[in-house]
Amino acid sequence: MQEACDVLDLLRAHRSERDFTGQPVSDDTLEKVFDAARRSPTWNNAQNVSWVVVRDAEKRARLAQYCGNQTWIARTPVFVVLLMDFHKTALAARKQGREQIVHDNVNSLLIGGVDTGIVMATMMTAARALGLDVCPIGGVRRQMQDVVDLLELPPLVVPMAGICMGHVETRSTLPKPRFDLAASWHDEVYRDHALPDTIDALDARMQDYSQALGRPDAQNWSDAISSRYAVPTYTTVAATLVRQGFRFPMPTTEDAAPTP
Amino acid sequence: MQEACDVLDLLRAHRSERDFTGQPVSDDTLEKVFDAARRSPTWNNAQNVSWVVVRDAEKRARLAQYCGNQTWIARTPVFVVLLMDFHKTALAARKQGREQIVHDNVNSLLIGGVDTGIVMATMMTAARALGLDVCPIGGVRRQMQDVVDLLELPPLVVPMAGICMGHVETRSTLPKPRFDLAASWHDEVYRDHALPDTIDALDARMQDYSQALGRPDAQNWSDAISSRYAVPTYTTVAATLVRQGFRFPMPTTEDAAPTP
Repeated sequence: MQEACDVLDLLRAHRSERDFTGQPVSDDTLEKVFDAARRSPTWNNAQNVSWVVVRDAEKRARLAQYCGNQTWIARTPVFVVLLMDFHKTALAARKQGREQIVHDNVNSLLIGGVDTGIVMATMMTAARALGLDVCPIGGVRRQMQDVVDLLELPPLVVPMAGICMGHVETRSTLPKPRFDLAASWHDEVYRDHALPDTIDALDARMQDYSQALGRPDAQNWSDAISSRYAVPTYTTVAATLVRQGFRFPMPTTEDAAPTP
Repeated sequence: MQEACDVLDLLRAHRSERDFTGQPVSDDTLEKVFDAARRSPTWNNAQNVSWVVVRDAEKRARLAQYCGNQTWIARTPVFVVLLMDFHKTALAARKQGREQIVHDNVNSLLIGGVDTGIVMATMMTAARALGLDVCPIGGVRRQMQDVVDLLELPPLVVPMAGICMGHVETRSTLPKPRFDLAASWHDEVYRDHALPDTIDALDARMQDYSQALGRPDAQNWSDAISSRYAVPTYTTVAATLVRQGFRFPMPTTEDAAPTP
């Protein structure tokens, strides 16, 4: 069980690191990371995930800006942009004399989203096993069209997330607080009785964490997330999805009952 | 580097196993798996992922049917249904006197999709490190509303995927063919020159694989995936998303140019 424990320790020790040194990452290391990710399970083995490896400094600087001035993207030696990619399967359909229509259904976003996450997690685990440090980035969707244009993505391909991969001098020792398992683990049916207490507990732990980092005035968890989730953000994602060919009707509110 | 190699070997050795024995999985083992998954990075640390552990045999039989008669769900001792969960953050907003609107944007599906995939991959890796066998399941969205009702999911919570966890007598030795890295790995910009050849190569490997499994008449990769992706499927996903509160406008095709 020693080996299993090592893997669990590695998974539990995830930290997002941002203070990358200039130390490069070799193609050989990347190939090991991607070869592990390539084995990830995907929806119907469709493999609707691809990625662009960005090393070019000017391009990373642009991406850092598009992602909301995330300067660590400009500092990391390698920025991997993960793509939801229905172009590969569209070519497969053409080879077979068929026309792909899966992207006319909102379900395609759930296929692409979940499978991107699976590949992304596998890449992060493999990279960390090889001694690299990583920082996952959702901000590639903040100015999604600019990223599409910069990476010259064809129709049916959009950026979903990114991973900074590199090395830091000193790893963070404090784990970012997470929910207690009671907030997320339900048995047989979903029951939310534990949620208010677990939110309070997470808020308290986040305040301790901020204090330990010397930022005692930082927002607690519920304040931070609700201030982001209560205002319009990422307002151009829908338009870019449609431009890239993901065109599906959503039922109107009137069609759907009951109201939450 | 021995430890890293063990992790990479584990990741590369992923197989979806379906022939589960009745051997149970203890709560202690599940807790180790979920404790690793709990540390997964998520969008803004929002942790919009939860899960329901289904052990009840009658409920698993229903889920097997809802997922398209996937009988292994009825046979596995534990079926974990992963949920995109914006209910937790809605309660956080209420605690702060705010109103959550993130789910009025299609981006919420990309947040929930990617983060579900990250948590799911971490669970599968942790489970396999502990000696369990797993089978990822996308079919929980096939009759999404029935799964919502069966698991008593509140508004802003929907099933995204599932994992069968258990033990098999004999593991499959043949890895399911995947794309060569050239199909998915792009440097600096997306170029699809390699795709036709990699599709042909995957089709050939899939035929060898089917032959080795004694099913020489099975579809090759492009035939199998394009026959699924060229017909309407999962046609009720949009309605269930709207019923559960994910209500966002999508621009019309006319608003978006160019056409793919």
